[in-house]
Amino acid sequence: MPKHSDGSGGGLDGVFHALSDPTRRQVVERLAQGPATTSDLARPFDMALPSFAQHLHVLERAGLVTSEKTGRVRTYRLVPQPLDHLDTWLAAQRTRWTRRLDQLDALLYDLKEQQQ
Amino acid sequence: MPKHSDGSGGGLDGVFHALSDPTRRQVVERLAQGPATTSDLARPFDMALPSFAQHLHVLERAGLVTSEKTGRVRTYRLVPQPLDHLDTWLAAQRTRWTRRLDQLDALLYDLKEQQQ
Repeated sequence: MPKHSDGSGGGLDGVFHALSDPTRRQVVERLAQGPATTSDLARPFDMALPSFAQHLHVLERAGLVTSEKTGRVRTYRLVPQPLDHLDTWLAAQRTRWTRRLDQLDALLYDLKEQQQ
Repeated sequence: MPKHSDGSGGGLDGVFHALSDPTRRQVVERLAQGPATTSDLARPFDMALPSFAQHLHVLERAGLVTSEKTGRVRTYRLVPQPLDHLDTWLAAQRTRWTRRLDQLDALLYDLKEQQQ
């Protein structure tokens, strides 16, 4: 069982954690354009391969990417569902926030009416 | 300068990191409904106050909340802009991903045409 997927956040802990690093976000950005091999993914980064592999491992553990090995070449693909979960969470906060602003608007309107 | 706001991700590192914890996400969910004091925020959690204060500190450093002290009471408010930044990043990935699916669709269509 993935370390961050403890059920309390439906895996959100691991997804947010995975995306808190600029290298890992860049990998997600690259994979959103299509599958890529480990060496394709590593090329833009000035980083030792074991460190880079660790980043890929964090992304895979969070469920954001999946990989398949053919011969000696491992190819990574984006799994978009965890990004949808983030989106759902963000949308819920926006709904709460907007509702609050609407309530404040109504309150200000009532205060103004009372003063007239 | 906040530790995670190094310019490389426009503060996204710190925002993603702050939201990778279920307690901190719950605080954001609560504050999306309106301001709250430290003790209001701490109430639902079975946690020592210093640990809870540490969570609030992480949220404040990431720019997700702001606080103000009146007498002995500190009140927290949500700052929605960092959530907008996350949203922008997610939307960009969705655009990339959708464009890729469109290209695959077009490719499959062409292959089918060639076979006829």
